Amino acid sequence: MGRADFDLSLYLIADVEGARGADLVAITRAALAGGATLVQLRAKSIDGGAMVDLARALLAETRAAGRRLIVNDRIDVCLAAGADGAHVGQDDIAPADARAMLGPDRILGLTASSPAELRRFDAAIVDYVGIGPAYPTASKDTPKPVLGPDGVGRLARTLPCPAVGIGGIGPGRAAPVIAAGAGGVAVIGALCGAADPAAAARQLIDEINEARS
Amino acid sequence: MGRADFDLSLYLIADVEGARGADLVAITRAALAGGATLVQLRAKSIDGGAMVDLARALLAETRAAGRRLIVNDRIDVCLAAGADGAHVGQDDIAPADARAMLGPDRILGLTASSPAELRRFDAAIVDYVGIGPAYPTASKDTPKPVLGPDGVGRLARTLPCPAVGIGGIGPGRAAPVIAAGAGGVAVIGALCGAADPAAAARQLIDEINEARS
Repeated sequence: MGRADFDLSLYLIADVEGARGADLVAITRAALAGGATLVQLRAKSIDGGAMVDLARALLAETRAAGRRLIVNDRIDVCLAAGADGAHVGQDDIAPADARAMLGPDRILGLTASSPAELRRFDAAIVDYVGIGPAYPTASKDTPKPVLGPDGVGRLARTLPCPAVGIGGIGPGRAAPVIAAGAGGVAVIGALCGAADPAAAARQLIDEINEARS
Repeated sequence: MGRADFDLSLYLIADVEGARGADLVAITRAALAGGATLVQLRAKSIDGGAMVDLARALLAETRAAGRRLIVNDRIDVCLAAGADGAHVGQDDIAPADARAMLGPDRILGLTASSPAELRRFDAAIVDYVGIGPAYPTASKDTPKPVLGPDGVGRLARTLPCPAVGIGGIGPGRAAPVIAAGAGGVAVIGALCGAADPAAAARQLIDEINEARS
């Protein structure tokens, strides 16, 4: 249960908006059964109380699967639910403030999309960095320039911690990101929007494992 | 600096949306100069990083005035900014979870609008309750039945802690709420939307003091 004990390979962003009304707990359970290795709760549109309840429900699934749950943005929701860590973007609570609240044992992740964004923070206090967008994506309000798998790999190589590629990743697009040097891929729509999230996760894990072999 | 050391008399809700683009720090400084006794930062529409920055700026004003700053909803922003306490609504992080994060020395407030909502929580863990709406208000997405000053007073008398009336309170509407038994009035528009927030605060404080005498 140490801070280093997590696997970025197939990182499910369990996104309330991305699920479009479908049952996020059922999606997460299925994705974990199919091989998702880490889960992040992202819920920009719901109140804090509902988010704590959802985090607790997801935590029961990740615990049962022997995996970790990260909470996006809300450090307070992470702590209230007893989740395994938090993830902050460039506009969220600063990594140093987040680390002070989380303590040394919880996982802390950060999103960055450029060398300038990486220079803003002290890399020693985060455990991984989400780098993207790897491909074009419609899931962010303010789109950033697309890095491509090679751009993700270039930024990843400047880091003292593992990197996970994010943005527009689905079947056929995971392998190039892994091959470029990322420790894993983070996906929203490819799992939250899948008719069969377990099958979709199995397909992505196969692709990731093949890219590594 | 103990948890009991705050004055609910004229509680400014410094609301980013309520300020409609005006400088919330300047509004707060003026309201404090005019006699506001407590300040709450409410910022539903801005990101966590910007909210921490704003909380730190408001904290400089409240500290200079010898007053306290409470942060609405986001316990993490309260802790990151080093604010004096947090306020939660019925849909936010539960009071018990908030208290666990805040520790025993920070102020914790709760909003309630009915006996049923008051029964949901353990009154011993909060330091005050905001009761409303005292009058009709347009500032909430989901309007609750208007309690009127007497309704605020009736709920206030059931509490083991002080109550502050909230909702639609402005000049001429503060005295009835105080006379009904509230320990203070919380205002948004009457100060955030005032042409001269210092004069508006002076007028309200005079009305409150007169109602108490």
